[in-house]
Amino acid sequence: MTNTTAPTIDLPALVAQTSTGLNDASADAATVRFDVRASLATGTNTQVDITAGQHSFTIDEPPALGGQDVGANPVEHLLAALAACQVITVKVWAAKLGVTVDDVDVELSGPIDLRGFLGVDPDVRPGFGEIEVTARISGPEPAGAYDELIRKVEEHCPVLDNLTAGVPVRATITAG
Amino acid sequence: MTNTTAPTIDLPALVAQTSTGLNDASADAATVRFDVRASLATGTNTQVDITAGQHSFTIDEPPALGGQDVGANPVEHLLAALAACQVITVKVWAAKLGVTVDDVDVELSGPIDLRGFLGVDPDVRPGFGEIEVTARISGPEPAGAYDELIRKVEEHCPVLDNLTAGVPVRATITAG
Repeated sequence: MTNTTAPTIDLPALVAQTSTGLNDASADAATVRFDVRASLATGTNTQVDITAGQHSFTIDEPPALGGQDVGANPVEHLLAALAACQVITVKVWAAKLGVTVDDVDVELSGPIDLRGFLGVDPDVRPGFGEIEVTARISGPEPAGAYDELIRKVEEHCPVLDNLTAGVPVRATITAG
Repeated sequence: MTNTTAPTIDLPALVAQTSTGLNDASADAATVRFDVRASLATGTNTQVDITAGQHSFTIDEPPALGGQDVGANPVEHLLAALAACQVITVKVWAAKLGVTVDDVDVELSGPIDLRGFLGVDPDVRPGFGEIEVTARISGPEPAGAYDELIRKVEEHCPVLDNLTAGVPVRATITAG
């Protein structure tokens, strides 16, 4: 799974160039739109085929939640999105700050009280009650050199922002 | 990618049994904990290897954002998590309500203003400014039979809950 090909992109140069290019950009010019499509696999309870750009993968549930465990489930993908966003934000901001980072490892854990999802108790929320993130950054810099990086990651990680502050979701569901 | 094996699980029976079993459950007994691990692939800018239970996959960025496009990126996985959660919540609540659903398709789209992520403008948030979801449910029921289902999905989708209402994230980042 791991592609160990050396990166062909000079990340510090790219980040500096992109940041400079955005200095005088309008909101429209600075905005990237992301699109994803999903559909239930025919004849299954819970297998969802996802398409995002050139990529496709399947999200499912374990048997205890009605599925066949063909892929990680939606809330695991939510945690994965946060984990990857933390790692990438570390690398991008390390490039901006001129700090060397060799490795980044993240563990995430969160509880879901199923009484919310299944409507057993209206006072229980359906989603995670909290999410715990433990991240470790490794590199050759002296102790303290990573402090500013850690602050910048906490301020600028897109998925962390959307999960902690929320985001307006305009959902239109039609049936027939 | 699609597994078209007929589902071996009777979803209405499972959902009814699980819901009944949760009626008198304590919060502890009703709670499932989800865990995910992530690590930067050695020598890469942005390839993140994810492990969730028995599943593993790679999240990356396109070249314009410093990666090699080995997998969908973190914010696409965030959208995928929401999409799959909507589809599965439709199926689970259709099973609870006794409504037949044949197909579910979802399109999601959201804008990110990169000036937030890259710290160019402190007034721009790093994450999605909004997320637009368009879902279509197909089935043999008469018009109107899906109205209650749609309300229940909007109320009980775990990822929708976490994204619209936010969730406390306790992040501990260490370095050295």
